[in-house]
Amino acid sequence: MVDSHLSREIREQPAVLQTVLEREMEAVSSLAERLRQRAPRYVVLAARGSSDNAARYGQYLLGAFNGITAALATPSLYTLYRRPPSLKDALVIGVSQSGQSPDIVSVIAEGRSQGALTVAITNDTHSPLAQAAQTTLDLCAGPEYSLAATKTYTSSLMVLAMLSAAWAGDAERLVALQQTPQWAAAILEDLPHVLQIAERYRYMEACVVTGRGFNYATAFEVALKLKELTYIMAEPYSSADFQHGPVAIVEQGFPVLAVLPEGAAAQDMLTFLRSLQAREPELLVISPLAEALALAQTPLPLPVSIPEWLSPLLAVIPGQMFALGLTLARGYDPDHPRGLRKVTLTR
Amino acid sequence: MVDSHLSREIREQPAVLQTVLEREMEAVSSLAERLRQRAPRYVVLAARGSSDNAARYGQYLLGAFNGITAALATPSLYTLYRRPPSLKDALVIGVSQSGQSPDIVSVIAEGRSQGALTVAITNDTHSPLAQAAQTTLDLCAGPEYSLAATKTYTSSLMVLAMLSAAWAGDAERLVALQQTPQWAAAILEDLPHVLQIAERYRYMEACVVTGRGFNYATAFEVALKLKELTYIMAEPYSSADFQHGPVAIVEQGFPVLAVLPEGAAAQDMLTFLRSLQAREPELLVISPLAEALALAQTPLPLPVSIPEWLSPLLAVIPGQMFALGLTLARGYDPDHPRGLRKVTLTR
Repeated sequence: MVDSHLSREIREQPAVLQTVLEREMEAVSSLAERLRQRAPRYVVLAARGSSDNAARYGQYLLGAFNGITAALATPSLYTLYRRPPSLKDALVIGVSQSGQSPDIVSVIAEGRSQGALTVAITNDTHSPLAQAAQTTLDLCAGPEYSLAATKTYTSSLMVLAMLSAAWAGDAERLVALQQTPQWAAAILEDLPHVLQIAERYRYMEACVVTGRGFNYATAFEVALKLKELTYIMAEPYSSADFQHGPVAIVEQGFPVLAVLPEGAAAQDMLTFLRSLQAREPELLVISPLAEALALAQTPLPLPVSIPEWLSPLLAVIPGQMFALGLTLARGYDPDHPRGLRKVTLTR
Repeated sequence: MVDSHLSREIREQPAVLQTVLEREMEAVSSLAERLRQRAPRYVVLAARGSSDNAARYGQYLLGAFNGITAALATPSLYTLYRRPPSLKDALVIGVSQSGQSPDIVSVIAEGRSQGALTVAITNDTHSPLAQAAQTTLDLCAGPEYSLAATKTYTSSLMVLAMLSAAWAGDAERLVALQQTPQWAAAILEDLPHVLQIAERYRYMEACVVTGRGFNYATAFEVALKLKELTYIMAEPYSSADFQHGPVAIVEQGFPVLAVLPEGAAAQDMLTFLRSLQAREPELLVISPLAEALALAQTPLPLPVSIPEWLSPLLAVIPGQMFALGLTLARGYDPDHPRGLRKVTLTR
């Protein structure tokens, strides 16, 4: 069972990250050049599922490093309501591994018809999404057979990170990106250990996954993997939103998985986890920081020191491995979650 | 116990909606005039908790009727990372009943220092948020004693709806708004019945709340009430996002609460609920539509026909009543959820 598509695709991630870095940098650089000329006023990111979590990372990247507000699209305005907002000053980016989802294609097509700059980030460069957009960036992930996206997710983050760094002309960040494949490989060495650790959570019924800032996206993606693969209620929250009400659900033993890399959000997340201690939760912590790991019943140490802006590409990997481990512990099929199809045609 | 603050504040909503319509229309009109002159390129909405759900409604309203893309702010860019994006072409709106949350104040203060048009929507016109913004719109809700926001939530939606209609100079929508208080009163007549119905869910451990388009916000808000008050895992989803993975969690008897008013999203929601039937979920449906109600184990009929864009102000009320009923059925205190404070100071 360890040799599922899911397991193989999780392990392929270092190679995919390396491939996309090599093959797409030229296309990214030429898009970056056009972005500097056109200077869009804001960005609209259209996506669903795992790709929407990648878009969430894009929101923080583009805001922090490109000084531009990025909105997650509300596709029903384009489809159900047929009342699309003005997009002429926007950069419109569609993210979809399959490139098939009609609602995401609609946002891109509308942007293009209004004269906006449009970009497709997809694993299928012949897909309707790629055809609708002016520019396509290829995820270069090869076929993804598992229904739960893993390598196309990290590759989507990589493409967004390359785009942000190239647009800003930030040579230092472009160099840092080159180290990502080897960091991912180092994290994957822990796979057998994480599969074993997941046993403890065989009968977990629900959990919260929390992250802040750049890793808000990671919290969403790890929660989605847990829901898709293990059918438990896994709800993502930023530590800030969580304190505005939902914290009430935490009682003794309630599992909270925290994503806590080094960086500006770490202190805030640590304070939050300490404030939870009075409720005696069960903590799982993905972090390189000893003081964060010390709070956890289940520490999931990150063996490498990563710049915070890049950490979502890597901190998600222990979460993927944990979701795989829990799927196996619960006796489910990692490649065929009940009732899911690889391509979901929502409008 | 029925005479809790929460119960009283739920019942005060028609009066509060009436008050805000009467008292704030002048301020809204004068802001609308300035918006037509300034013509911002996009909107940034900053909020947390229930107010963030109101902001989500604002995203759809402003997109559909004012033709403008609205982004939900990412406050950590302004606070933890100190890398705020450019806001000079933006309208920046902060929504907070208390007006105290430092992260929301930071977004408004940054917008103002960059020369953006800034608006505070708050129940405390002397709060830090009101002081930071150029223009303040008052929720006129009077003191809200219950920790779970109800009347300040519907009042926030009303202020956003008034602003959208006035900005568009849409006389027909401004007239429709006047009927909201009486519609709310009609829905509240069902309170004793809904309290009784909640008994059936005494031992529910988790549920999904789903809505689409304008009522995506309602799904979030009803889920938040359930989490705050009854401590169950209630997860909000648009029907579209839900089909991209999380649908895997639905098995026989799994509770799904659907918000399904008349309008452009209704057919899509109906198709979605029918597609769920093979999994034999337990359906609770808030709707005026007989064919939607017929699918439900627990129909929560809306007794009035409401334009879809206004339905979030009203469709949330049966959800609030259901959350109150479940709180009482489970023997919890509706006014003092464990571990919550009325004002949450996140940064």
